[in-house]
Amino acid sequence: MLARQLLLGAGCSLRRFSSASRGAVVVSTMQAIRAGEEDVRQRLAQINEEVQKLLALKEQLKQLTVDDDGSGETAAATPAPGKPAAASEPGNRNLSLKTPKGTRDYGPEAMALRQRVLDQVVRVFRRHGAETIDTPVFELKEVLTGKYGEDSKLIYDLKDQGGEILALRYDLTVPFARYVGMGNVFNIKRYHIAKVYRRDNPQITRGRYREFYQCDFDIAGTYDPMLPDAECVKVVCEILAEVGVGDFVVKLNHRKLLDGIFEACGVPADKFRTACSSVDKLDKTPWEEVRREMVEEKGLSEEAVGRIGQFVTLHGGTELIERLAADETLRSIKVAMEGLEDMRLLLQYCEIFQVADRVSFDLSLARGLDYYTGVIYEAVLLGGGGAGGGSSADEEITVGSVAGGGRYDNLVGMFNPKRKQVPCVGVSIGVERLFSILEARAGGKTRTNETEVYVASAHKGLHLKRLEILNKLWSAGLKAEHSYKLNPKLLAQLQHCEEYQIPYAVILGDGELSRGVVKLREIATRKEEEVALDTFIEELRRRLLSAA
Amino acid sequence: MLARQLLLGAGCSLRRFSSASRGAVVVSTMQAIRAGEEDVRQRLAQINEEVQKLLALKEQLKQLTVDDDGSGETAAATPAPGKPAAASEPGNRNLSLKTPKGTRDYGPEAMALRQRVLDQVVRVFRRHGAETIDTPVFELKEVLTGKYGEDSKLIYDLKDQGGEILALRYDLTVPFARYVGMGNVFNIKRYHIAKVYRRDNPQITRGRYREFYQCDFDIAGTYDPMLPDAECVKVVCEILAEVGVGDFVVKLNHRKLLDGIFEACGVPADKFRTACSSVDKLDKTPWEEVRREMVEEKGLSEEAVGRIGQFVTLHGGTELIERLAADETLRSIKVAMEGLEDMRLLLQYCEIFQVADRVSFDLSLARGLDYYTGVIYEAVLLGGGGAGGGSSADEEITVGSVAGGGRYDNLVGMFNPKRKQVPCVGVSIGVERLFSILEARAGGKTRTNETEVYVASAHKGLHLKRLEILNKLWSAGLKAEHSYKLNPKLLAQLQHCEEYQIPYAVILGDGELSRGVVKLREIATRKEEEVALDTFIEELRRRLLSAA
Repeated sequence: MLARQLLLGAGCSLRRFSSASRGAVVVSTMQAIRAGEEDVRQRLAQINEEVQKLLALKEQLKQLTVDDDGSGETAAATPAPGKPAAASEPGNRNLSLKTPKGTRDYGPEAMALRQRVLDQVVRVFRRHGAETIDTPVFELKEVLTGKYGEDSKLIYDLKDQGGEILALRYDLTVPFARYVGMGNVFNIKRYHIAKVYRRDNPQITRGRYREFYQCDFDIAGTYDPMLPDAECVKVVCEILAEVGVGDFVVKLNHRKLLDGIFEACGVPADKFRTACSSVDKLDKTPWEEVRREMVEEKGLSEEAVGRIGQFVTLHGGTELIERLAADETLRSIKVAMEGLEDMRLLLQYCEIFQVADRVSFDLSLARGLDYYTGVIYEAVLLGGGGAGGGSSADEEITVGSVAGGGRYDNLVGMFNPKRKQVPCVGVSIGVERLFSILEARAGGKTRTNETEVYVASAHKGLHLKRLEILNKLWSAGLKAEHSYKLNPKLLAQLQHCEEYQIPYAVILGDGELSRGVVKLREIATRKEEEVALDTFIEELRRRLLSAA
Repeated sequence: MLARQLLLGAGCSLRRFSSASRGAVVVSTMQAIRAGEEDVRQRLAQINEEVQKLLALKEQLKQLTVDDDGSGETAAATPAPGKPAAASEPGNRNLSLKTPKGTRDYGPEAMALRQRVLDQVVRVFRRHGAETIDTPVFELKEVLTGKYGEDSKLIYDLKDQGGEILALRYDLTVPFARYVGMGNVFNIKRYHIAKVYRRDNPQITRGRYREFYQCDFDIAGTYDPMLPDAECVKVVCEILAEVGVGDFVVKLNHRKLLDGIFEACGVPADKFRTACSSVDKLDKTPWEEVRREMVEEKGLSEEAVGRIGQFVTLHGGTELIERLAADETLRSIKVAMEGLEDMRLLLQYCEIFQVADRVSFDLSLARGLDYYTGVIYEAVLLGGGGAGGGSSADEEITVGSVAGGGRYDNLVGMFNPKRKQVPCVGVSIGVERLFSILEARAGGKTRTNETEVYVASAHKGLHLKRLEILNKLWSAGLKAEHSYKLNPKLLAQLQHCEEYQIPYAVILGDGELSRGVVKLREIATRKEEEVALDTFIEELRRRLLSAA
């Protein structure tokens, strides 16, 4: 609402200033010169002031509104007068031949690859004993309100059509917390793979869409420290290794430790979260800029920020824990020591799970979301072909986050009738990034069907026989298809097999049929062989089995 | 829009008439009595007229607006003045602990069953060579406009947040046609399993929700008559047989034949579609009522409707085709003969596909949607335990439609830049019905995880050893989990295994470990055996394989 008001306000001011009256300002300035220099100076100061106001307003706008076409211009909800919306112009109907902004269709090849990756991810979740649940694509708006900080403006609202006020889900964590809280569930280990919606500026070149899959694994329940937390790290490592997207590192940190550090550095308690969101930018922004933001925008003291800077550049393993545990100022801060104790346990468990070389205790990791209360994770892919372990992580180029998560012990209570908390920890796999990477790498043609045998006819008049053979194959559980033409050309049929990578064709011909045989053709080698009609299904099954 | 205007209009009129001014009317009537009887009669007539108008308006409203609480009262978009929305009252926050009206969460058991059914359905689609695609959950509103007749009011609109005007998909057919038309696809055989959204009055007791799965199989391309159409029938029969929901019949009819019959009965061409939608009600409504609707509401002549009645009660097999082909009036109508020719071929192909006993050529089948142009299908389950074939279908009680579809040759062109048509035929499997039936039947506990082995400790202090064993199991690709407590009770661990139907537990104890063994417990039989630590994974794998 505020954004909309600002938008309208700024639009008016800009128009008033920049179009018709710009000439008037110039003219009146000329008159002013004649009238005396003092007057001119006054008017110029006035203009300057107005420009400053507008720039400030524009800046606010940028932060508050969603930039709908990605061009930096804010889209108007209604077309400018005298300029009808393109789609409503007759003869221009083709403009509606698109999917909504920031979304796309997924054709058979994209789907085949996605399905393969999701199957791999699910296999890992299942290996760790997870069940799955599903929740509606929309929630009561109030369920989502107040959970995403300034990103709430990215939520897709449904139109009020005279019923409840609804919005599309923004992530799977809040619906999960609602499910657990509302259902009085006390423990569950679940995965949930589903699409979420963010009215963001799509950066399609970077594989970012407004509709995208999330793929979450969470463990809810009151358990002993770091046992579920360590398993989440293990799950991420298994998935990234099995999907095969190259070298990666899982950065680990702890919200309690971060809070303790802020306290030790003299940050007031009410600024912990805002300091945290500044630190969170360190993966994309140099320290100097983050430092400036904390001092100038967030109002932290130069000294406090300087001390924060000394901490957040640190990363390493167990030795870093010892160093921090020995730190004079940190030692007296209870939450810091609690966080460190958790980290010590977590690294020990990672060692047992044989992922110690994949993890890095990294004090610059903060994560954007407010609801984390303990361990936080973020997996990043390392560019380059380096085979080096975690310790050489900083020499490699980071190509982006592919998983993230953490512990959130205070979210479920919001959704429980008696405000009962159920502690949770979980990770979200950035499958869309994985899809993009694998898609780019796949290059060649991905197989999109599973057809095992194509029933072809060598000449006209065999379509009834084809249907009969097909029916036998289907009854035997084999995956079979044919041309839907009565008299297709043999060449066209065989080309279809090659294009769709179907391994075998059964070719029917009157000559062969009269002798009680069919031709069995192996598509890849183009080798053909006659097989008895009575036994060709067994022969086919044998060959398919031995190839598998 | 119209509905909203009517709503506001009626609301105003009702309020004006029924609240404050009702007293005024009475008072002024009293005055009128004094002024003379004639005046009173006039005023009463006026009142009566206004009441009639309001009742008519109310009736229109009922038909046009979606009745949001199912009570017959139209929900107001904003709370009545002085009566704040319940959810915003402090202390009443629990009211928001729900999923949106007409939606539900699916817990692990529901999901396990759904996944199993969907896997079976997909297996059949794949057996017939289908690929899969996906489209966004929302479309530009104009893509959906004008495709669903009066059901368009059930579409969920998204709020206009300053970008495009969007709506949630209502089915998967229109998005598929857009995909094919927009992408210049000339042939594709695809399935699509995804949720669709209808702002209907949910009949949750009958398993009808506002968010539900559709499961579509379609063949697009220019092919020879009935070859793809017959395969759709085969696909439906395979799915219903393999999912195992009891006896069923697939009703078949043809839109061209229906049009021909209407023509033969003297229905004007511009009333074919409306006559069709009356006939479509025959599965739920007795003929007498449908007859009345056609005469009184749709304005067809008594005679025409009488003749229609003679046709639409017919059903059967090949013999019915011969009978209709010999019909004096039908013979002269080209579309009727084209439809019959298709039906003849279709039944022949069904014979070859060995589903002739599953199909019934049924002239009462019409299907609601406007876009069908050829063959139409509808599969219904037959109640009772009768093992009878198709011919005894009428003696059985129909328990509802579980699949439906047909040929739509003119839809894709709407979405092609050059208006090029691609003929299509497809079926939609009513998986939600199947889920409900199987859920009711399942009764017992469905397994929700795939865990093969649970790592338990017999006493305190073994958690590190447990993690080590778990890690070995995961590395070997086995599905394993444990308690996330440091020192869980053995009984609690074994109970967990029984509850979650985990087949094996590995029990660790200091005594056994010192001898280099572990206990392997079969949960179902409670039989325990010592196995060497070095070989227990192979032993476990062997047992799991032989059980599979």
